[in-house]
Amino acid sequence: MTLDEKLAQLVGFWVDQGDDIVAPLQGEMATSTLYTDASAHGLGHLTRVYGTRPVDPIERAQWLWSEQKRLRETSRLGIPAIVHEECLTGLAAWQAATFPTPLAWGAAFDPTLVAEMAAVIGGSMRELGIHQGLAPVLDVVRDPRWGRVDECISEDPYVVGVIGTAYVRGLQSQGVHATLKHFVGYSGSQAGRNHAPVHAGPRELADVYLPPFEMAVIEGRARSVMNSYAEIDGLPAAATPAYLTDILRERWGFDGVTVADYFSVAFLHTMHQLAPGRGEAAALALRAGVDVELPTGDAYTAPLRELIAQHPELVALVDRAVLRVLSQKEELGLLDEQFETPPTVIDLDSPTHRNLARRLAEESVVLLRNDALLPLGAAPGLRIAVSGPNAAGHAALMGCYSFANHVLAHHPETPLGFDAPSVLDGIRERFAAAEITFSAGCAVEGDDRSGFAAAIADAKDADVAVVVVGDSAGLFGRGTVGEGNDVSSLDLPGVQRDLVTAIAATGTPVAMVVLSGRPYALDWALDGPDAVGAIVQAFFPGEEGGRALAPILAGDVSPSGRLPVSLPRSAGAQPYSYLHPLLGGPSEITTANSTPVRPFGFGLSYTSFQYTDLSAPETAPTSGELGVSVTVTNTGKRGATDVVQLYAHTPYRSTTRPVAQLIGFERVALEPGQSAIVTFDVPSGRLAAAGLDLVRRVEPGEVELWVGTAADRATSGSTTLVGEAHDVALSDRRVTQARSTLSPAAQPVPELSATN
Amino acid sequence: MTLDEKLAQLVGFWVDQGDDIVAPLQGEMATSTLYTDASAHGLGHLTRVYGTRPVDPIERAQWLWSEQKRLRETSRLGIPAIVHEECLTGLAAWQAATFPTPLAWGAAFDPTLVAEMAAVIGGSMRELGIHQGLAPVLDVVRDPRWGRVDECISEDPYVVGVIGTAYVRGLQSQGVHATLKHFVGYSGSQAGRNHAPVHAGPRELADVYLPPFEMAVIEGRARSVMNSYAEIDGLPAAATPAYLTDILRERWGFDGVTVADYFSVAFLHTMHQLAPGRGEAAALALRAGVDVELPTGDAYTAPLRELIAQHPELVALVDRAVLRVLSQKEELGLLDEQFETPPTVIDLDSPTHRNLARRLAEESVVLLRNDALLPLGAAPGLRIAVSGPNAAGHAALMGCYSFANHVLAHHPETPLGFDAPSVLDGIRERFAAAEITFSAGCAVEGDDRSGFAAAIADAKDADVAVVVVGDSAGLFGRGTVGEGNDVSSLDLPGVQRDLVTAIAATGTPVAMVVLSGRPYALDWALDGPDAVGAIVQAFFPGEEGGRALAPILAGDVSPSGRLPVSLPRSAGAQPYSYLHPLLGGPSEITTANSTPVRPFGFGLSYTSFQYTDLSAPETAPTSGELGVSVTVTNTGKRGATDVVQLYAHTPYRSTTRPVAQLIGFERVALEPGQSAIVTFDVPSGRLAAAGLDLVRRVEPGEVELWVGTAADRATSGSTTLVGEAHDVALSDRRVTQARSTLSPAAQPVPELSATN
Repeated sequence: MTLDEKLAQLVGFWVDQGDDIVAPLQGEMATSTLYTDASAHGLGHLTRVYGTRPVDPIERAQWLWSEQKRLRETSRLGIPAIVHEECLTGLAAWQAATFPTPLAWGAAFDPTLVAEMAAVIGGSMRELGIHQGLAPVLDVVRDPRWGRVDECISEDPYVVGVIGTAYVRGLQSQGVHATLKHFVGYSGSQAGRNHAPVHAGPRELADVYLPPFEMAVIEGRARSVMNSYAEIDGLPAAATPAYLTDILRERWGFDGVTVADYFSVAFLHTMHQLAPGRGEAAALALRAGVDVELPTGDAYTAPLRELIAQHPELVALVDRAVLRVLSQKEELGLLDEQFETPPTVIDLDSPTHRNLARRLAEESVVLLRNDALLPLGAAPGLRIAVSGPNAAGHAALMGCYSFANHVLAHHPETPLGFDAPSVLDGIRERFAAAEITFSAGCAVEGDDRSGFAAAIADAKDADVAVVVVGDSAGLFGRGTVGEGNDVSSLDLPGVQRDLVTAIAATGTPVAMVVLSGRPYALDWALDGPDAVGAIVQAFFPGEEGGRALAPILAGDVSPSGRLPVSLPRSAGAQPYSYLHPLLGGPSEITTANSTPVRPFGFGLSYTSFQYTDLSAPETAPTSGELGVSVTVTNTGKRGATDVVQLYAHTPYRSTTRPVAQLIGFERVALEPGQSAIVTFDVPSGRLAAAGLDLVRRVEPGEVELWVGTAADRATSGSTTLVGEAHDVALSDRRVTQARSTLSPAAQPVPELSATN
Repeated sequence: MTLDEKLAQLVGFWVDQGDDIVAPLQGEMATSTLYTDASAHGLGHLTRVYGTRPVDPIERAQWLWSEQKRLRETSRLGIPAIVHEECLTGLAAWQAATFPTPLAWGAAFDPTLVAEMAAVIGGSMRELGIHQGLAPVLDVVRDPRWGRVDECISEDPYVVGVIGTAYVRGLQSQGVHATLKHFVGYSGSQAGRNHAPVHAGPRELADVYLPPFEMAVIEGRARSVMNSYAEIDGLPAAATPAYLTDILRERWGFDGVTVADYFSVAFLHTMHQLAPGRGEAAALALRAGVDVELPTGDAYTAPLRELIAQHPELVALVDRAVLRVLSQKEELGLLDEQFETPPTVIDLDSPTHRNLARRLAEESVVLLRNDALLPLGAAPGLRIAVSGPNAAGHAALMGCYSFANHVLAHHPETPLGFDAPSVLDGIRERFAAAEITFSAGCAVEGDDRSGFAAAIADAKDADVAVVVVGDSAGLFGRGTVGEGNDVSSLDLPGVQRDLVTAIAATGTPVAMVVLSGRPYALDWALDGPDAVGAIVQAFFPGEEGGRALAPILAGDVSPSGRLPVSLPRSAGAQPYSYLHPLLGGPSEITTANSTPVRPFGFGLSYTSFQYTDLSAPETAPTSGELGVSVTVTNTGKRGATDVVQLYAHTPYRSTTRPVAQLIGFERVALEPGQSAIVTFDVPSGRLAAAGLDLVRRVEPGEVELWVGTAADRATSGSTTLVGEAHDVALSDRRVTQARSTLSPAAQPVPELSATN
């Protein structure tokens, strides 16, 4: 291969790239090189062929097949390009299904369902000739001010790892390579400011930021990894061999391909001011272990070529990366593919897609408060006043990386291309015999209260007011959450709180539904004198979100989502994570109140659950497995699903430990009066932490155990880990296995409670 | 020595300890051992003999001398105790002078004056038989939400180091040992929550947290160091040899004694949950390098003795610490002292004390805004309406570690014991011919607006309203700033903003004076539609603060303080430091606005200054000195002092670098029209940063230079560092030397400007 042919394999080309802002500084970074020039020596990646503008997928597939054929037949080496696409909440292409946002996956605590979702996403991608998906996001939530929290699964690394790995397995089951991002630490950006420096030491990296990636690489066999934009303690991830090479490849044995987050190679020059030019930026990134520059060649092209002329030893780094890319293409079958038959019919939003979208949405809904208001039932003539800026329209159902909010927002003339009934639509459908009014009241943003009066008037005449508030997802200043939409206040945006309060002042009971991409400070609505009748939290629930919510309001389904993030007290109390040592929480030593308004793992049900008989062995080996079982009983009057959560605390070790740490979870559906024994086989490695030498290790000693939430020890026990301190080996990193054994369905027990 | 005799040398005893809360959890941690038992085998330290209750210093000295004599004559080894005391803003004893709080030292940018202050503090201590002072605080401000910001000097490590070292030299010039605290990282406690974990990597430690201590140890030859309460990345400082032993002793050559922050040894068990008991906590702390347990023996006594019975090898650690304590006692002359003659007359608040207190207060006042309102002049009949909760009374002049706010607040029946005229007193004194009214309007805390009406009425009839707002310093829930008084909002406490706005609404021009222990979010008063006529920021200015402020308001003196911390945008924008790399500031990539309302180094004057002719060599060696000069001219109509600030930025190095970094400063007094050439001899080590191997190093390359503030390049230049990368040696760590050469006084130039 010539040097030009090698470099061509290390870059992408963004055919459709234009002025629409779908990535940071895209305009400034755009290359002016024409595509034909860029592909003269072959091409590593084709960037977002389907996901940059609303194009007809079948027409675009025709073009793509012919283009791959051209590369195969007319470039000297005949190597087709890898086609990559965004796919976090579904394939980011026109007409393709949009699923719930990752925070909703976290709330559902259902890795199996996420794997099924990812498999249908992967199937659509494979049909369209897409080889690599830029998902999942494995960043651990550390600060809800960050706009990209919308794209994250949870503030618990174990939940992120288990659910993220399920996504990887699902997507890759279809032959599409998953891309783990953003490696590593991105979510720790200071004060939630996008791209800002991460202030973290190596122990926090080892115990919080790295584990989800480790799990997805080792357990999930993820084939690609993308770097984080941010620096950690003075060193940008894209320029640091410690992360992309030493840990990822040498320690974990990753043998796939790493790709640059868009423009991040050039950012080593322009934003991090580390490299004095783009050539040096390329050399830094290559040396660190960034194999492919995306979205297009800004640095791995002429600037690198010029530097190589002076430093020919850099060719060894180029060769290393090229070999990896060619291996990936071989693994994908690209080197043998003929590209004869493009698809002519494809359904990117099939009943299978929709069914999965609905089930995941339904499982993800978190009931935060219920003062005997829900379920509403569906008595004929029930008068429901629907209001709030997120009640109507589909945008409020979708996250920032959905095609609708990421791309289509720039093409208002183009229809969505698939059905996405709003919450209002869902209510009208489910409550067909009710009297339903609608009045938005206000927008998500801004201070316009002119719509309040109509919404208040509607509410006065209603039996119940359903006020749908929350976020608008977008990018870089468009919207209230999403990439670049970071905040310094965690109050609901705009005048939405005032709308809720004004409607509640009518005396009509209010069910507040929050569709958002981050948790907000809702203390006023939950506990204060302005507390409303019920609060339902749905993280952007996707195209079937409206149809999932209405039956929950009606009572057909009991809410079973649990908070995958702490519900924050205020922006001024951030950062906060439930995974804090004793002194990271409230104490007599500080007047600052950091206690979340509702803890990690919290969620109410229409029934009540009781936990009994937590059983753990007196001792367990540091290098084995810990078997813990608990009985969960549905003590209410209706069938419902619970998420049984097992937590641990391991005091008096060689480093400080979190006061609570989730070590297992299991969804259990129970009829009234029914019990299940849930057994968790916890690998001792779940209790490991980085020791003084930064090796993750299980140390002997007491383990406090409980079932409940991070802050509520509903039932507790303990065990003692015995034996030598055990260094965690790769094989110890497996997931907690849980199984539930149901008792025969029994009669409902007499007592009734609305909470679990 | 017996083991009991050794352990006795490693602990303090708090004779006066009672129920008054002057340290965290003091009550819970109190030992019940009687003093006679505790000192049966000798005693390492006597704790806060003068500073726990209001006792007559002379009477207490009599007791102390007799007590030392008793230890000398009746204990088997005859070794007196070290007497330690708090002394941050002056000796914390009844009747002793109270100086401005450290943030005010930072604002004055005058290390020489701080050294003079520390020398008179040390003189008083020496006279009273006190050997060690628990000051200065060298924690670098990282988050204004932290209550102890009040005790810190600046958010710039260089300013902290230079001024802190001056304090050390002053105090130790009197034979009193300084104690550097809190080693290390304490101010990085998460979200400003006291004792919360510090999330920082080793590079941030090397470049931000450690340098002030390094300077004070190596340049200032500080004799004692106290540990930080907090953990860094999972490891409490008190249990980590890396800090107290490896860096402090082995790298820097410190050969003094380390002391535990109060109760922090036992906290390794109770709060950090690292040690399973107090004996193990003692072993951890001793091994880490904590020589002396303070305030009293909770762990280094019976618990350690019991552990030693099982682990006799621990005696070697005990011996190491005992030898250090005995060396310190020898160095202090304690082993030879006879304690024959206690003092019979002492003036803890002499004219020398007061003069220094006034000068430092005067130099520290920062003029933040002036819409042609100040100076007021002092025309007869001028009607001044003074209001605000901090106008009257002395508490608002003093920081949390002043005797008044730390101790006397628990003894309301006891008078202050010295003169501390309030701002109102100062105004009445200076504006003797004016018509002055006073009405507080409201308290610092709470929501009582009942006093608004009177204050508004007064203001209506006045020519100018002086509204004195800010903080009330205290501890652990008493007050709004100080130890344990952390906040999640940076709005002025209580209804003070509303008071200011209401008074401004009268149309009478408002001069808002802020007496505070942290910078507050004052954007509304500075720039918004509610902007007031003038804002004067004084960090608790001490006993002469009232007398320092009034002449500035009148115009006798032009304000010359400059912000030693950024003026924050909001609590939700924290943490923020001006020492951020490019991506740590505002960018197109985030909607979160972190820009301070006024930058580090900002401060107005009654005259205007112009900077010209910045001169730097084309190149300078990486291992030498960089000479930079600039001409500063007083272009206004009145004499005034400027703080000329030299900043640098060093892009394209091996780690990311701050966009601005102060590398020299100099106070220059200029008559109208007068110029001075200020020359800075900057050791190249000032431009060092921790490299990839964490060694601090000066790398070759461009250096952008400017004079102005962190955010305002009033005049700029550049140089290029040439030569090999230079590892900073101990001898390279000296302070920038600056000197100013004044031109002959000239006639005022015609133009007039209120700003510099």
